[in-house]
Amino acid sequence: MDAAPRIAIDAMGGDTGPVAMVAGAARALRKDPKLRFLIYGDEKLIGAELERLPAMRAASEIVHTAESIAASEKPSQAIRRARVTSMGMAINAVKDGEADAALSGGNTGALMAMAKLALRTMPGIDRPALAALLPTLTDTDLVMLDLGANTECDAQNLVQFAVMGSAYARTVLQVQKPRVKLLNIGTEELKGTDELKEAAALLREADYLPLRFDGFTEGDQLSRGNVDVVVTDGFSGNIALKTAEGTARFVTDLLRRAFKSSLRSKAGFALSKPALNLLKVHLDPNNHNGAVFLGLNGLVVKSHGGANPKGVANAVKVAASMVRNDITRKIGEDLDEFRAHAFNHEGA
Amino acid sequence: MDAAPRIAIDAMGGDTGPVAMVAGAARALRKDPKLRFLIYGDEKLIGAELERLPAMRAASEIVHTAESIAASEKPSQAIRRARVTSMGMAINAVKDGEADAALSGGNTGALMAMAKLALRTMPGIDRPALAALLPTLTDTDLVMLDLGANTECDAQNLVQFAVMGSAYARTVLQVQKPRVKLLNIGTEELKGTDELKEAAALLREADYLPLRFDGFTEGDQLSRGNVDVVVTDGFSGNIALKTAEGTARFVTDLLRRAFKSSLRSKAGFALSKPALNLLKVHLDPNNHNGAVFLGLNGLVVKSHGGANPKGVANAVKVAASMVRNDITRKIGEDLDEFRAHAFNHEGA
Repeated sequence: MDAAPRIAIDAMGGDTGPVAMVAGAARALRKDPKLRFLIYGDEKLIGAELERLPAMRAASEIVHTAESIAASEKPSQAIRRARVTSMGMAINAVKDGEADAALSGGNTGALMAMAKLALRTMPGIDRPALAALLPTLTDTDLVMLDLGANTECDAQNLVQFAVMGSAYARTVLQVQKPRVKLLNIGTEELKGTDELKEAAALLREADYLPLRFDGFTEGDQLSRGNVDVVVTDGFSGNIALKTAEGTARFVTDLLRRAFKSSLRSKAGFALSKPALNLLKVHLDPNNHNGAVFLGLNGLVVKSHGGANPKGVANAVKVAASMVRNDITRKIGEDLDEFRAHAFNHEGA
Repeated sequence: MDAAPRIAIDAMGGDTGPVAMVAGAARALRKDPKLRFLIYGDEKLIGAELERLPAMRAASEIVHTAESIAASEKPSQAIRRARVTSMGMAINAVKDGEADAALSGGNTGALMAMAKLALRTMPGIDRPALAALLPTLTDTDLVMLDLGANTECDAQNLVQFAVMGSAYARTVLQVQKPRVKLLNIGTEELKGTDELKEAAALLREADYLPLRFDGFTEGDQLSRGNVDVVVTDGFSGNIALKTAEGTARFVTDLLRRAFKSSLRSKAGFALSKPALNLLKVHLDPNNHNGAVFLGLNGLVVKSHGGANPKGVANAVKVAASMVRNDITRKIGEDLDEFRAHAFNHEGA
């Protein structure tokens, strides 16, 4: 694999458009000077952002597009404008082999629909899933999927997510045989939907896969660090992810209020500040920005719409790491293994 | 309504059985001396706990039961033992009019199944839902349901939950026309499952109900305080509730670690302690213990299995407040209103 990942950037997605996207890519470039960028969007706006970033400008090629996908645009409508929008063209760059990964902070549903149409799902995958790393109490992050690409999932989808999430964990977390759990509302075998029970039965049988299936887990265990991959449908996954984000902000808001409540606690805050800053770094969603669509014949990374340059830089880092680790090929190999065994079983 | 609520307690449910249940009830009694208790379970164990609690003993009647429901017992099996178990007998006390509410910290699925069989759902309600109060950044809590009673829900179930949750909010939060939102993975009308979209359409039409339907909300908004009632299916509700609990613990664990990381931060902690204790009180799940099964012809309150005496006391307080506020009648009136209008619509 070429050590110079080429990232196609949709500069018009996200809350601030080119402002955060260009500054974030430049930030990533400073740490990883081999990166190359194709930047899609309004060339004047992009050019203005690049003005004081000579290294970034040298590493980038701007492709002007007059149109972009709106945050509220229906995916069914967005896909008709794939060829003329910054989002669609960034994805097409991956399809045409001009870029190794596409990055967007725009409309998730449109990004998913366009990516699926342009890149197609891998053999053996019915639906792609959105995966991201979540912080835990231990030094190791957790891979969680699906985070919102598929509102409803059947047992086969969940099993495919487990295979893809494990390949992702082996690549980014360096765990040989990731421990995989299904998110449920209890840990007993009889708990949950029929889809979950069936997926658990299938995963229990699939001992030839490079993963250890370890049953169900619950929402309050996510940050405990006792699992590498948590698999769920996109509805529950999105609810869990956003509830975790909201609760972390809730607690830190209460904390801020507590520290401000008296002169004494203000003094205590001043003393504890260096230690509390570590907590802030650990909880900052920008440090975990960059969710990957797994299961496509090409890499597409979703940046949070509200990500700041640091967050965008992290998403670029995720994209570059996926490219260098050849994640698409690795997932493909695991899927081949899975299908070969499943086929043998059927034949037996 | 009699101002002396009689609470039937399943003393054998929960992690410590009678230890937390009796101490918790005694704690509630100290603040509300009119309470009366019927305590079901092993009379020796209960008697031992009552030994040094003369006021609690005077307010209680022990009913010996040799059997209890195991935490892992299937609901279908549990209901066959309703007449001989502490959980089943506590519920039957409500059915027979001997108690005004039942309280258990045991197996939620069994409690739900037994309560539904003994008390039956109210006219117009297909399924009961588990509702609880959640803390927010404002002074007012939030009512959320369903928290795990129903794994899958259709649009009609969700509308019924909205009606029940609003009656609950009017009673406990004193809001005349509670603001109601449906939990979803986006706020745009096209987001989410068909059930959610249909429920939203029905609630938008139902302007004669004493509630203000305000569309969808997401997991990261739950603690913002901009809604009185959040309605969801039991699967997502349970995932959200537990993820919120887990994340709050995660952040406070990180905080504890940060404060211990240096002598300087330890000194800062010592100074800030009084302020931080307020945060602890706000986040302690025991202060929000006591989830109510709404939609039954009788009151059943679920205490968290791991609740301490303070938590159990809070659940007793919730039960007593529901009894005094005659919540079952209020929900019934709202449901009559809803059905009368729905019927007129059909006839039109």
